[in-house]
Amino acid sequence: MDYSQFIAELGQIETITNPSQVAKLSEDYFKFSPVLTQQLTGKVGDLVVRPNNEAEVLQIARACVKHRIPITVRGSGTGNYGQAVPLQGGVILDTSKMQKIHWLKPGLAFVEPGLKLGNLDKQARQIGWESRMVPSTVRTATVGGFIAGGSGGIGSILYGQLRDRGNLKAVRVVTLEDEPRVIELRGDRVQKVNHAYGVNGIITALEIPLAPAYAWAECIVAFTDFMAAAHFGQALATSDGMIKKLVSVHADPIPTFFIPLREYIPPQAHIALVLVAESDLESFKVLVAEHGGDLCYEKDAQAASKGTSLVEFSWNHTTLHARSVDPALTYLQSGFPADPDLKLVQHMHEHFGDEVIMHLEFVRSAGEVVPGAIQIVRFTDCDRLDQIIKYHEENGVFIANPHTYILEDGGMKQVNREQLEFKQMVDPYGLMNPGKMRAWFEQSGK
Amino acid sequence: MDYSQFIAELGQIETITNPSQVAKLSEDYFKFSPVLTQQLTGKVGDLVVRPNNEAEVLQIARACVKHRIPITVRGSGTGNYGQAVPLQGGVILDTSKMQKIHWLKPGLAFVEPGLKLGNLDKQARQIGWESRMVPSTVRTATVGGFIAGGSGGIGSILYGQLRDRGNLKAVRVVTLEDEPRVIELRGDRVQKVNHAYGVNGIITALEIPLAPAYAWAECIVAFTDFMAAAHFGQALATSDGMIKKLVSVHADPIPTFFIPLREYIPPQAHIALVLVAESDLESFKVLVAEHGGDLCYEKDAQAASKGTSLVEFSWNHTTLHARSVDPALTYLQSGFPADPDLKLVQHMHEHFGDEVIMHLEFVRSAGEVVPGAIQIVRFTDCDRLDQIIKYHEENGVFIANPHTYILEDGGMKQVNREQLEFKQMVDPYGLMNPGKMRAWFEQSGK
Repeated sequence: MDYSQFIAELGQIETITNPSQVAKLSEDYFKFSPVLTQQLTGKVGDLVVRPNNEAEVLQIARACVKHRIPITVRGSGTGNYGQAVPLQGGVILDTSKMQKIHWLKPGLAFVEPGLKLGNLDKQARQIGWESRMVPSTVRTATVGGFIAGGSGGIGSILYGQLRDRGNLKAVRVVTLEDEPRVIELRGDRVQKVNHAYGVNGIITALEIPLAPAYAWAECIVAFTDFMAAAHFGQALATSDGMIKKLVSVHADPIPTFFIPLREYIPPQAHIALVLVAESDLESFKVLVAEHGGDLCYEKDAQAASKGTSLVEFSWNHTTLHARSVDPALTYLQSGFPADPDLKLVQHMHEHFGDEVIMHLEFVRSAGEVVPGAIQIVRFTDCDRLDQIIKYHEENGVFIANPHTYILEDGGMKQVNREQLEFKQMVDPYGLMNPGKMRAWFEQSGK
Repeated sequence: MDYSQFIAELGQIETITNPSQVAKLSEDYFKFSPVLTQQLTGKVGDLVVRPNNEAEVLQIARACVKHRIPITVRGSGTGNYGQAVPLQGGVILDTSKMQKIHWLKPGLAFVEPGLKLGNLDKQARQIGWESRMVPSTVRTATVGGFIAGGSGGIGSILYGQLRDRGNLKAVRVVTLEDEPRVIELRGDRVQKVNHAYGVNGIITALEIPLAPAYAWAECIVAFTDFMAAAHFGQALATSDGMIKKLVSVHADPIPTFFIPLREYIPPQAHIALVLVAESDLESFKVLVAEHGGDLCYEKDAQAASKGTSLVEFSWNHTTLHARSVDPALTYLQSGFPADPDLKLVQHMHEHFGDEVIMHLEFVRSAGEVVPGAIQIVRFTDCDRLDQIIKYHEENGVFIANPHTYILEDGGMKQVNREQLEFKQMVDPYGLMNPGKMRAWFEQSGK
């Protein structure tokens, strides 16, 4: 297809057509998955557009509708499920120039989608606040990308998941109708586009809640036994009198993948990575002692704000470090049921041994503390990966499969009628991130 | 006994001997209980002392030991279990002149025991913080009294109970040894004197954690059905994406006891009293609508900071308002098991009807949301009260009996060896609040 007319219609809006740049901006971190690598490698857009504001997004939307060009929205491309990969070419809308903070006040911020979470936090901390939750990619990930493709992260032990009512206050989206328009969604209506991979509206602004910014100390606690580390994590996660932002537990040999931390961690250790309020550090150390842990790394908030944060060894950064050491490693995403004894965690840990290495992230879900898990998997082939997933599911572990780019096949498991109906309204030509929403493409063929 | 020598030894320390003043300072709110009223009415101390600081407390301790005079410590007397009532006369140590804030910083405060919680919060809010939890008597209750006799309150839905590790950082206590001294307890050692009714050391300073001070909006939501109100409370309490400080649910006719609120509340309503972060108010209203609630009262944080707070209709202020209308009413304190369906709450509500009127306070306990209850009871006689308690216990409801002044017979249920051993060390003559600790008086006769 010839894009010259399309580009001319965009006027002053920045476009990128250089193939190597376009190819780079067509990727995200799907390489974490050997399955997705096979399916998505080589999928590229035709050109990239970089609007400065909502008015330019409207202009792009109009041109795309007119020429029936598919459009895939992209933040920083730190997602892992290929949600930013254009399956049918077309335009990549890169939000990186839309970084404005419209306003910021105690408890709330209204921002553009391309704002980096780390920059939001820097500004918010000036008035004593920060994001309620962030991914481990906080330094580069965007607010819009996190909402469109994330589910929770560091802070979820205090505030639950992004899907929980209250964790997204409002969004503005541009439609792909014959005459594109801006729709503001507030209250539960935000769920129409929350975690929808950008298939049904281009997010142009978000109102998000903020959390009080504690001074976070960073600690590593080492154990000689994995279940001791896991029980420590459970105890900390359920200690209501200690404020923590991260409780991340890693079975040996995961700590050996953390090269920059190797000097601090004893050999063959199972560890917990913790962010705890500095004012609760003394109480925290009592818990560490009670569980027989070895506090092998400790930085107060001041020290932790410099250099590398433990945040960048948790959640999916764990997988990143593992794959840096051994690119054959991949991962799973799981939700274990709430259980003070962690019986099912123990069973899976013992059952799979070194093939599925346990990595727990404790989070709050519907008012309860539950162990999420982002296990490191020694990949052999797709059949074995399916077997592993099946065994977990049959034993009551919820798997949010990260080896699919289909919206419904990941964590959702079923058609989200609300999101589908919204797509039917705002994207009648099926131009938005085509091929990602099963409910849509099984109906329309695209 | 002739106290002239004792008084002389106190030098400049304020003493009160006027019998009516002493009688007044010998009471707390034990009148909430018809059982305690019978047992404690007329129990008075011999004189009251009002030290200015720890040095004067040491001086009083020396004189008490020398003359073997019992000593009962008192804050503002807002407790309900007779913990401040001197059973064997002697000295009442009134901490009301020890109100100093030694220091205050983000997340922590170090204060004298006689400081009123309301005054601490006023100061702490200047730097963006407040108490993690307060009783409904926050305006008059002291920090020392709350720790020595309280268990939780407004804020417990976020931070759990006072007994939870982290919610009391350190205490300094003066002993009643032959040579009284000051002991500082930190870490888990604070549990030696936490909720010990002052039987084993005179608390002279406390280091307590603070919570970020949200702007709290105050709301009343009315329902036509009690279980609808209860389920709403459960849903709000387990909504991790909405920050709330109070979720207090009251069955009809309790709201009719709230005279100052009568104009706002529809007739025959079951209500929820809520403190929710102003920044989450919009999300909160979506939940109200979803549950079919009627938001009949709403004040933003600014408006709520003036006039009467809903705090003063929750927790044991509920009982206070009920008894103002009908002095024959009394109460229970219960812990129901965590249960999304609230089956046991419903059973008790239906089983007892108007005899035990349901009042729920949702709190966090060991990482879980549980419905506590402070039911209003139509008292007939002690046997029937015992039957009611027994029925609850047999059906799995934990009762923290408020109709006893014995430490172990309330919420504790068993001998606290740690507290007993500490008493054996610091109070060898059994002078501290004698008759309150079963483990001690069964052994020593006093």
